[in-house]
Amino acid sequence: MSKPVVEVQVRAVGAVSEGCAVFLGNEDKVFVMFIDQSVGAAITMFMQGTQKERPLTHDLLAHVLRALGAKIDRVVVNDLKDGTYFARLVLNAENETQQKKIIEIDARPSDCIAMATQQLAPIFVSLDVWDEVEDITEVLRKLHASGRSSTSLRRSKPTSLSTIMSLNHFVGPPPLTAFSRNSPLLYH
Amino acid sequence: MSKPVVEVQVRAVGAVSEGCAVFLGNEDKVFVMFIDQSVGAAITMFMQGTQKERPLTHDLLAHVLRALGAKIDRVVVNDLKDGTYFARLVLNAENETQQKKIIEIDARPSDCIAMATQQLAPIFVSLDVWDEVEDITEVLRKLHASGRSSTSLRRSKPTSLSTIMSLNHFVGPPPLTAFSRNSPLLYH
Repeated sequence: MSKPVVEVQVRAVGAVSEGCAVFLGNEDKVFVMFIDQSVGAAITMFMQGTQKERPLTHDLLAHVLRALGAKIDRVVVNDLKDGTYFARLVLNAENETQQKKIIEIDARPSDCIAMATQQLAPIFVSLDVWDEVEDITEVLRKLHASGRSSTSLRRSKPTSLSTIMSLNHFVGPPPLTAFSRNSPLLYH
Repeated sequence: MSKPVVEVQVRAVGAVSEGCAVFLGNEDKVFVMFIDQSVGAAITMFMQGTQKERPLTHDLLAHVLRALGAKIDRVVVNDLKDGTYFARLVLNAENETQQKKIIEIDARPSDCIAMATQQLAPIFVSLDVWDEVEDITEVLRKLHASGRSSTSLRRSKPTSLSTIMSLNHFVGPPPLTAFSRNSPLLYH
């Protein structure tokens, strides 16, 4: 790893109006990123160990990696520009002559988190991103404590998380879609 | 290939109430399968050559294949059981000692079609599946000719396509979501 990094875990995944919110962090700090609904659903299924009748796209990616003798070494959320997070999927590939090599592939953090969750690979955040993101540990704690189904989140840029902080106390009417019994906040 | 196969192309992709309809076929026959909205969107973007700011999941899969020295040789829709299609993603892998090998991976047809469309790989249907599916060439021709935005499709089992045949003449109210200007039927 070229940059200093911090190891994080997926602390929670919840449905929001236009996708999913993924809470990443550790004991010191938690931050949130907003991702596509389909990838959020995949992460949730991997966290819950959901059995699937047919392989979904991230399962297919895992099968391709296995078939080609590669596995996920780690994933790194390594940049944040204009509200968009960037990440690297780091593969450990071994060919038939037993030569090992490390391959880094540019990817969305959501896909990286899905693959890391599925493969139990570690997730890191580069220190410069870690220092930039706002800590919402308290928001997550309150969401967790309340277990409320009416707490609303809406998409906001990761650099302006005060929106979420304020909405935590807001019982939202539409169009602020709520965490509901059908789209629970899943804790890890 | 162990089974006799027929080569097909993606003839059209359109939004339906709970996902996307993909029309596969050739000059002799066209059939439809219903797939997830997210994978349908990916296929549509690959057909249209849409430039993306960040790699989506199927782009990531393509980057992983390239990094590991593999490419898609072909995809085969090889089975149909209880209304579910099955497929194989067939990879051509070459390691650093120049040894080539063919790898077949079980996958959803939707993911296979997305990858084949992206990589310009051929799509085949096994002859037993081909013989089983109902020909809806005429439905597609009428949809194409009418260019109508109110023609409705709803999910039906691939073995009971008469539903689509009848709905072709039906201007549907909700909840039969229509092909709309925002979710056009995309012809190839």
